[in-house]
Amino acid sequence: MAPPLEDHRMEDEAEEEEQRPLLTRALHRSATNNTSQVAMVGSNPCPIESLDYEIIENDLFDQNWRTRSKVDQVRYVVLKWTFCFAIGVLTGIVGFVINLAVENVSGFKHDAVSALMESTSYWTAFWLFAGSNLVFLLFASSITAFVSPAAGGSGIPEVKAYLNGVDAPNIFSMRTLAVKIAGNIAAVSSSLHVGKAGPMVHTGACIAAIFGQGGSRKYSLTCRWLRYFKNDRDRRDLVTIGAGAGVAAAFRAPVGGVLFALESLSSWWRSALIWRSFFTTAVVAVVLRLFIELCGTGRCGMFGKGGLIMYDVSTIFDDLMTYHLKDIPIVILVGVTGALLGGLYNFLMMKVLRVYNMINERGGAYKLMLAATVSILTSCCVFGLPWLAPCRPCPTNGSPADGICHALNRFRRFQCPPGHYNDLASLFLNINDDAIRNLYSTGTSDVYHPGSMITFFVASYGLGVLSYGVVAPSGLFVPIILTGATYGRLVAMLLGSHSGLDHGLVAILGSASFLGGTIRMTVSVCVIILELTNNLLLLPLVMLVVLISKTVADSFNSSIYDLILQLKGLPHLDGHAEPYMRQLTVGDVVAGPLRSFNGVEKVGNIVHILRTTGHHAFPVVDEPPFSPAPVLYGLVLRAHLLVLLKKREFLAAPERYPKEYVAAGRFLAEDFDKRGSGKQDTIADVQLSSEEMEMYVDLHPLTNTSPYTVVETMSLAKALVLFREVGLRHLLVVPKACDRSPVAGILTRHDFMPEHILGLHPVLLGSRWKRLRWQKGAVAKYFRSLLMWINNSG
Amino acid sequence: MAPPLEDHRMEDEAEEEEQRPLLTRALHRSATNNTSQVAMVGSNPCPIESLDYEIIENDLFDQNWRTRSKVDQVRYVVLKWTFCFAIGVLTGIVGFVINLAVENVSGFKHDAVSALMESTSYWTAFWLFAGSNLVFLLFASSITAFVSPAAGGSGIPEVKAYLNGVDAPNIFSMRTLAVKIAGNIAAVSSSLHVGKAGPMVHTGACIAAIFGQGGSRKYSLTCRWLRYFKNDRDRRDLVTIGAGAGVAAAFRAPVGGVLFALESLSSWWRSALIWRSFFTTAVVAVVLRLFIELCGTGRCGMFGKGGLIMYDVSTIFDDLMTYHLKDIPIVILVGVTGALLGGLYNFLMMKVLRVYNMINERGGAYKLMLAATVSILTSCCVFGLPWLAPCRPCPTNGSPADGICHALNRFRRFQCPPGHYNDLASLFLNINDDAIRNLYSTGTSDVYHPGSMITFFVASYGLGVLSYGVVAPSGLFVPIILTGATYGRLVAMLLGSHSGLDHGLVAILGSASFLGGTIRMTVSVCVIILELTNNLLLLPLVMLVVLISKTVADSFNSSIYDLILQLKGLPHLDGHAEPYMRQLTVGDVVAGPLRSFNGVEKVGNIVHILRTTGHHAFPVVDEPPFSPAPVLYGLVLRAHLLVLLKKREFLAAPERYPKEYVAAGRFLAEDFDKRGSGKQDTIADVQLSSEEMEMYVDLHPLTNTSPYTVVETMSLAKALVLFREVGLRHLLVVPKACDRSPVAGILTRHDFMPEHILGLHPVLLGSRWKRLRWQKGAVAKYFRSLLMWINNSG
Repeated sequence: MAPPLEDHRMEDEAEEEEQRPLLTRALHRSATNNTSQVAMVGSNPCPIESLDYEIIENDLFDQNWRTRSKVDQVRYVVLKWTFCFAIGVLTGIVGFVINLAVENVSGFKHDAVSALMESTSYWTAFWLFAGSNLVFLLFASSITAFVSPAAGGSGIPEVKAYLNGVDAPNIFSMRTLAVKIAGNIAAVSSSLHVGKAGPMVHTGACIAAIFGQGGSRKYSLTCRWLRYFKNDRDRRDLVTIGAGAGVAAAFRAPVGGVLFALESLSSWWRSALIWRSFFTTAVVAVVLRLFIELCGTGRCGMFGKGGLIMYDVSTIFDDLMTYHLKDIPIVILVGVTGALLGGLYNFLMMKVLRVYNMINERGGAYKLMLAATVSILTSCCVFGLPWLAPCRPCPTNGSPADGICHALNRFRRFQCPPGHYNDLASLFLNINDDAIRNLYSTGTSDVYHPGSMITFFVASYGLGVLSYGVVAPSGLFVPIILTGATYGRLVAMLLGSHSGLDHGLVAILGSASFLGGTIRMTVSVCVIILELTNNLLLLPLVMLVVLISKTVADSFNSSIYDLILQLKGLPHLDGHAEPYMRQLTVGDVVAGPLRSFNGVEKVGNIVHILRTTGHHAFPVVDEPPFSPAPVLYGLVLRAHLLVLLKKREFLAAPERYPKEYVAAGRFLAEDFDKRGSGKQDTIADVQLSSEEMEMYVDLHPLTNTSPYTVVETMSLAKALVLFREVGLRHLLVVPKACDRSPVAGILTRHDFMPEHILGLHPVLLGSRWKRLRWQKGAVAKYFRSLLMWINNSG
Repeated sequence: MAPPLEDHRMEDEAEEEEQRPLLTRALHRSATNNTSQVAMVGSNPCPIESLDYEIIENDLFDQNWRTRSKVDQVRYVVLKWTFCFAIGVLTGIVGFVINLAVENVSGFKHDAVSALMESTSYWTAFWLFAGSNLVFLLFASSITAFVSPAAGGSGIPEVKAYLNGVDAPNIFSMRTLAVKIAGNIAAVSSSLHVGKAGPMVHTGACIAAIFGQGGSRKYSLTCRWLRYFKNDRDRRDLVTIGAGAGVAAAFRAPVGGVLFALESLSSWWRSALIWRSFFTTAVVAVVLRLFIELCGTGRCGMFGKGGLIMYDVSTIFDDLMTYHLKDIPIVILVGVTGALLGGLYNFLMMKVLRVYNMINERGGAYKLMLAATVSILTSCCVFGLPWLAPCRPCPTNGSPADGICHALNRFRRFQCPPGHYNDLASLFLNINDDAIRNLYSTGTSDVYHPGSMITFFVASYGLGVLSYGVVAPSGLFVPIILTGATYGRLVAMLLGSHSGLDHGLVAILGSASFLGGTIRMTVSVCVIILELTNNLLLLPLVMLVVLISKTVADSFNSSIYDLILQLKGLPHLDGHAEPYMRQLTVGDVVAGPLRSFNGVEKVGNIVHILRTTGHHAFPVVDEPPFSPAPVLYGLVLRAHLLVLLKKREFLAAPERYPKEYVAAGRFLAEDFDKRGSGKQDTIADVQLSSEEMEMYVDLHPLTNTSPYTVVETMSLAKALVLFREVGLRHLLVVPKACDRSPVAGILTRHDFMPEHILGLHPVLLGSRWKRLRWQKGAVAKYFRSLLMWINNSG
């Protein structure tokens, strides 16, 4: 299907294009890849770039520290473990601080409102409530919008994209970290229906990435040892570990954290990494335990023993946690409900996000206006709906619910007389963690009125969909857990005596099914629920419910994170090939024009090509007199070329560097280390005189002599497997026959994207090889072009 | 470093070798790879073969079911889940049956001995004990030696090798399964110091592999649907799932099972596989729970509630499970002890295995004699050593130990008067599970005498080292857990009041540290211990102890399974490249002579090459008139060539098959499916007339047109990454320049083995790139050549 390649050495072609530099080689392909290099990161469009997990092997430097001297190896290993420990400690501290702040700020607010309600100052209570919520959310939104847009949203899609090999500036900067923490505290305290788990994942990843930046040259906070981490592979490992630590801190689930990172976030994994990640999450668990013990005597204000999410249902009511074979139908019912509601949730969320994005694109003021609207709506719901609920007398029969009703923080009187409680207010006017704890409590079947549960379910579902898109650090997990628990209880209430299961237990299953139906995680959901509830016996039920909800929901749409990834235009590369990729060869999709360099190249040509193209790597071809026939020498990176140009180690004639040149340390390996995220040289930084432009450089010492290659007749599906499994950024395509240039093109991540492939071969669109995915891709493409248009015009 | 390639088209060379068929292409390389194709599988040397995880893409058939019709896809998915469910159910049942049998047989034996002891018939008791042990072990050894040698040992190394891509006939056959189950019951019942966890892993893998065989043609137990699994990828997935299910059944640890398979066994993993594996282990857990409930009312004889390993320490003595910062030194002490003892254990085990292997190689009678010797030694130890222990009165102060002492099965009176117990006998004359439960019991600091603990530790350590090599299905886990628990308690006793930790808790830590020091698993050990003890709070201590013991022990030697793998000569391919591999190119190690075929080849040539070489794949090169210049068309497998020859679809002239030929279904895709383990055609099965030998076949429809290729100047380390990550069996090496044959060689697993590489380039031996590994490789090589020699001479 590929059009025949034109021979780049054809004389007449060279004559036609006079302006083209003599030594440059350009292979014209029929197609060019015009995939967008811009994606939504956080709440703003940003340029994105691929990461390079390949080990660059060239004469000059070797990124693999394990092959260095014994001392280097030991330093590297010690440093890696130290980083793991430090990431664990810091993530644990941050997790604690966020919880402490939320519990205190939010608790103070709720108590003040409750006190005002008790003195029947209802309007004052509302104005205080709505006003403080608005202030908190506007604070969160403004710092996100104006200080660090990359901190918006949950951050999990960005982390997932990074671990898949897509980098964007600022997603892991110091500023993003600070805004994420402060903004999340404010957003959660503002009673907005968002969680803190997603932002914790981003925070953990951020902390890890800052360690991996190798210090800061700007603030002279660097050291030679940190060099070991100045490459994408080690940074990827650290970010994986950090993300797992974030989950562990959010749920106090060390095993669940590792599995979450493994199952949902990471695209590459090694056995050693599991262990490091597990070590880090255990450190997190220990740190959190330490702080909770410190706070045990009430020294932390409102932050009590249950400050972190943890619903220990095993020890108190163990006899209520029983189930039998006859309970299977209710489990299936909960699972299917979760799938239907989850699929719909994802669908609605996408619609809402699309509208929100269009509003947010218009500028900072619009962002704040949207946030204010959502905040006021939320305040009205949260404060208004409990009025619908009837007052219920506190049970006095000594049942478990009895104690809970009289407990200070868990149940709310709202407008009710003393000795009564308002069940809706107990759910609405509490922080989400306490609301979940209320719903999970066993032996409380008679505490909630079905009408209240329906109201709360509708409000929680609706607010969940409406709140996430607000420009502020906001998580998805906790609202989903809460909504799921609500309909779990509803199902249990509807079945009434037909089910022998405790309502609290069904609430847990409801949460699991809704997580399965929206986020589509499986193992990690089970293990997180297991660790949250500290009850191994629940496992089979939770598994069954998640299995059902995920399987059913998968027939509607993708997981919420994948949908957000697509909406954001982040080019996530799946591990499995799409069926139509088997019908194509590599030659069918490789895009042009290809620019390559000679082994010894004129400086002017390099500068020209770097200026006129955006490519990040160029094949190096040795031609006579350096080799008898044109032969592929390797691949040279743009970043390395820029370093070379800045060094100005030029040669007057086209010849190779003398051996002493390299040996004498004129090039330091350090100079070629990958710099931190978003810190790159550009060709605009290079200013050369016209004399220098006429000189030559020897590219051989810089060239990666072992690039991975595929023959152009290789099936695209198998090339994708290679690209993805080995973690490449550039894959060289070599021609099958020898009668042409030794290299036919370069494949990058974008060449494997469905939009590009199906754009080149629209005939596949109607074929049976196509999957549902393409429609989604089209939407994403549309959105992306919209984004570009807005960008360019505003 | 590579010697220049000889041009295979040189005329004079062709003249020199008159006997070589005209159309055959042979590329002579300076080196040939004479790595052993034989390894110890179970207890006998067997031929081994690599597995092929690559998707074969050719005109004729496509192994990827996901690209087939909707119906095929649904069938495939449904079948896969059904298999997972069935594997879970069967593994659960087998796990239960093994436990039930062991508990009853062993319990009956121990009770009979105890009864005889109480009537002071000491000698009768001994003869009964030693005699029954001998009979049991000889039964286990004979069926292993004479019925299915592949069932010997734990089977974990074989499973690990299979999942790495090394197949051996019979490791997963029906017969092996039966012998493994029966032999393991007998071996464990014979009081031999071996466990049932390792054999459970093999059993689970075996059950899974039998599902993946696609039924049995011999017994007409097959169906078209089962075809979907007739390839190595799907079988690998099933075996991974089965192995995880085995661990889950052995320890009732569903999460631990998945993580064990992921961390220790599997070389490739996908996110979807985690979920399937987890589903299967959950089914195992449910099945076991069901059976245990069924047995609750005493209907299963001696099999009580604690029949399976599970030491639920959380619910009973929760207050004893506390620890503080000041307990860290004791944890470190236990960790370091575990590392030292573990490293020594591995070292001694290797020495003993080497001696045992030499004995076992001499024949069946020697195997049985060795087994008998070990059995008698064990009986003497187990029965003799308790006489050294003083009788201790049962405590009557109502402490937890009080109840235990009077419980029927857990504590033994042995020679003591009523109301007393013999602590050594309570450990020796119980099944290992009960002994572990005794050691893990909290609040029992005063139950054991330090002298008894030392005796038991030495005996347990020594018998563990001596027992594993006996020709019988035997596991390593349980002896290691038991030995670890013993020295854990010893450490706690030595420290006495300096430690605030409960002795039972330190015993658990001891087990963890010894597992970390021998098996070197990390995450899965932690999770298994967590699930065994059902106490999440232990996690930080267990992690710390495993981290220390693994790290320290790693500086001595490899994990016991890796050592056994090397000793057995199974070519396990590590994921990371050795440092010296970066100094070599692919061209430096590729071995010859290479045989390739023309696109349309003479039948006689194919037969000749298949007869004279053992290669499993051949490059197909199109030459004039089929292409203007010699060009690589793809790779054809020996198995497919054999099918083609058996079909006898020959052509009279060298031309391509007409299109109708393929379309008319003359070749059925089914014929080319990978057959079950060990069931292969050989060239000896093909009998052709001399007329047929002169005819031609068109190899194009059979050829995999998208083989992975590397350029000969590619660094060996990076080629290994490709080979390993993508899961290849054959990797084509293409020349850099175009002046030679279009293919320079084929790399297989054996070309990446240190023995081969360092044999070719002995200069690397002295270099700083070399690692410790080579010495081990040398030992393995020595052993392998010994094996070969014995094979050939006997």
